[in-house]
Amino acid sequence: MIRRLAVVGLGLLGGSIAKAARRRGLSREVVAVGRRNESLAPALAEGVVDRATTDLAAGLDGADFVILATPVATIEALVPRVWRAAAEGAIITDVGSTKSPIVRSAERLAAERPLAFVGSHPMTGSELAGYQAARADLFESALVIVTPTDATDRLALKRVSEFWEALGARVSAMDPEDHDRAVAAVSHLPHLVAYALVDAVARVDPSCFGVAARGFKDTTRIAASDARLWRDVFLTNRGALGEAVAAFKASLAELERLVAGDGGAALERELERIRRIRGRLE
Amino acid sequence: MIRRLAVVGLGLLGGSIAKAARRRGLSREVVAVGRRNESLAPALAEGVVDRATTDLAAGLDGADFVILATPVATIEALVPRVWRAAAEGAIITDVGSTKSPIVRSAERLAAERPLAFVGSHPMTGSELAGYQAARADLFESALVIVTPTDATDRLALKRVSEFWEALGARVSAMDPEDHDRAVAAVSHLPHLVAYALVDAVARVDPSCFGVAARGFKDTTRIAASDARLWRDVFLTNRGALGEAVAAFKASLAELERLVAGDGGAALERELERIRRIRGRLE
Repeated sequence: MIRRLAVVGLGLLGGSIAKAARRRGLSREVVAVGRRNESLAPALAEGVVDRATTDLAAGLDGADFVILATPVATIEALVPRVWRAAAEGAIITDVGSTKSPIVRSAERLAAERPLAFVGSHPMTGSELAGYQAARADLFESALVIVTPTDATDRLALKRVSEFWEALGARVSAMDPEDHDRAVAAVSHLPHLVAYALVDAVARVDPSCFGVAARGFKDTTRIAASDARLWRDVFLTNRGALGEAVAAFKASLAELERLVAGDGGAALERELERIRRIRGRLE
Repeated sequence: MIRRLAVVGLGLLGGSIAKAARRRGLSREVVAVGRRNESLAPALAEGVVDRATTDLAAGLDGADFVILATPVATIEALVPRVWRAAAEGAIITDVGSTKSPIVRSAERLAAERPLAFVGSHPMTGSELAGYQAARADLFESALVIVTPTDATDRLALKRVSEFWEALGARVSAMDPEDHDRAVAAVSHLPHLVAYALVDAVARVDPSCFGVAARGFKDTTRIAASDARLWRDVFLTNRGALGEAVAAFKASLAELERLVAGDGGAALERELERIRRIRGRLE
């Protein structure tokens, strides 16, 4: 049981965390910290949070469990300020989709002031954004990756994992760098590619969109995602994303070579090989 | 009302056409032509077709409406044989997803023997294949593109369009080359890219698939499509596909440039611009 849960950033993820924690009674008190009073008002009015403030220090005061749920680039900038303002003994986690810069920054700060930080990444995959899209059941059956390191406090890791599990999520642990490499491949790369696909069709001829069927819509649904959020994701995970893009270009070049080649037997073998890999996924 | 409908190829599309035509009573008689008796047996047993044969000439004998529903590369090879075997006055259409080679081949043959051919492309978008996946409602609300040219018989165009409408589809007409260019961009390119994405993740590290969320699955669902079918699609529409791939690479290169650049304001503007284009799609 948490005494005072502070949620910093009340968008899709922060809002959903506050709603889920409230519904499941995980914290005696829920406090929201946001940038503007107007965006905090709905959660206050609905009773999802007990208090809301635009003052970080006031919001963190006395909170024993803190979740940083702002866009990922803001989390990185927030960490040092949170470190100064957080209560003694507080457990801090976040929801950023790139983990190593945040985790490593927290580790450097912990050398000066020992606070327990555990990186988290809820893989809830939605193209929606904002508190108005927040749902108490967002984390049910979702995968949340936690990213402990050798320096992570084991009790804090246990409490953060149990928090996500109490929200209905499956929790899996990964090294922060491994996490960043994996999500670059299965999440950040597909987003970049989906944006490129939509732009490519517009380059060929925007009237082509008129014959777009379900396949195109599914493949590019994630290109309807929030631009600022994905700008931050791409920029914070630039290194691993670059590696994934290089692998993708090699794969595309190989397929192009086979399409340009004669006969098609090698192309069919390659497509069948990939189809089987994809078939194992669901 | 059709007297005798001949469906050549009884896979997902041919099977669905036979089922839909039977259910809606569009033809007095339905005849299937296939390569192997075993694959024709289920449709005969279910009463979906009245007769089934592996002999093309026997199957086309007396048929006043003929639909070529084999994989697209086979349709091209079939057209000259169909031209020799089809009954006088027969209306012929097909379901191939690349249109200009088929339509232009039929036009050359029509100069020698005047038969009415109209190219069709039902955009039913499914990663499934085979008669076992066929459904009488597959065409309901689907878009079917017909590809008449200056040489197309207007009455045949009307009858083919009405046939698809009777199956529940919306029908839209396009020039064959414009069609091929458009589907290269919104269908063939996304398929090629989906295959490349799956292969890229396997190249980075197959264990990454373990953290794949809904976004990755949606984006790569079409990479579970039938390898032989898509080999044929890619090869028959090589030229237009090459143009679409070039546009895609230019789009990806531009996004890479912005990700590598400083600040991110230009990247955010570009993502937002693309997000709005995608947002207009559904």
